[in-house]
Amino acid sequence: MARSADDREAAEKLWGMIKGVRICMMTTLDENGILHSRPMATLPHAGFDDGTLWFFTRADSPKVHELKTHWRLNLSYADPDKQDYVSVSGVAETVRDRDKIRFLWRDILSTWFPQGVDDPDLALLKVSVDQAEYWDSPSSAMVYAYGY
Amino acid sequence: MARSADDREAAEKLWGMIKGVRICMMTTLDENGILHSRPMATLPHAGFDDGTLWFFTRADSPKVHELKTHWRLNLSYADPDKQDYVSVSGVAETVRDRDKIRFLWRDILSTWFPQGVDDPDLALLKVSVDQAEYWDSPSSAMVYAYGY
Ligand SMILES: Cc1cc2nc3c(=O)[nH]c(=O)nc-3n(C[C@H](O)[C@H](O)[C@H](O)COP(=O)(O)O)c2cc1C
Repeated sequence: MARSADDREAAEKLWGMIKGVRICMMTTLDENGILHSRPMATLPHAGFDDGTLWFFTRADSPKVHELKTHWRLNLSYADPDKQDYVSVSGVAETVRDRDKIRFLWRDILSTWFPQGVDDPDLALLKVSVDQAEYWDSPSSAMVYAYGY
Repeated sequence: MARSADDREAAEKLWGMIKGVRICMMTTLDENGILHSRPMATLPHAGFDDGTLWFFTRADSPKVHELKTHWRLNLSYADPDKQDYVSVSGVAETVRDRDKIRFLWRDILSTWFPQGVDDPDLALLKVSVDQAEYWDSPSSAMVYAYGY
């Protein structure tokens, strides 16, 4: 957790960048040591203050299988126009709680889950953030904003 | 879901997206199994046709140390405005050849390497692409464009 006033400012900046970019590239490690990434839509929820980020996923998908053998992942948020870049290292957990799924569901998600909120293969990925850094201009050094 | 695109068109699209976004997030694995990413500027070079991507780096940097224990990495190129997303899985190699360094050097790089092209700690990372995919709209399934 951020500790001083400056850290709080940095943490706010970090979450602001995450919310602004919203679509991250989620990188996982497969059993052959190969790193894969894919775009994933971060779910909006109150504040991000608890250090978790949530995503919808298929329970039966390559990324979920990869996370079963190596639960650590990276989320990168990039906005080349604004030159905002965020790296989040965390651990993932699959959540199949139907109430939570209904609570976080948005109709726009039917782009990826056409069967909607009652699709039995629909699940959540809960990412607990261990460490996060951001860069906010080409010349900036990284700023640790979380969990150092 | 995934469409296998062995055609030239998909490969051209892929390299076009990489050149357009240019700054990727490079994800590596450290010795504790933690995945880290950081923004990296892809160097322009003729065509990308040989399946390699090049970056400047410090030889003595965490990412280079991480790549010594786990040489596989992921590069993600994201442009949220255009909704272009690319995932590249590859292997990295550090290159310290001074002629190659001079050939690829651009003055704009002095933002990150203020000592310029003669900095003895300056090196190149050569990434040989094993596999690459892209998504070019929110509803698109991924397209394999390379080495599937
Ligand atoms: C802009 C964008 C956002 C996406 N968001 C999600 C998402 O929130 N959840 C999801 O499961 N797939 C999402 N996808 C599809 C994934 O990128 C990916 O193709 C799919 O989840 C299968 O990944 P996997 O085979 O690695 O498990 C999105 C794709 C795009 C282009």
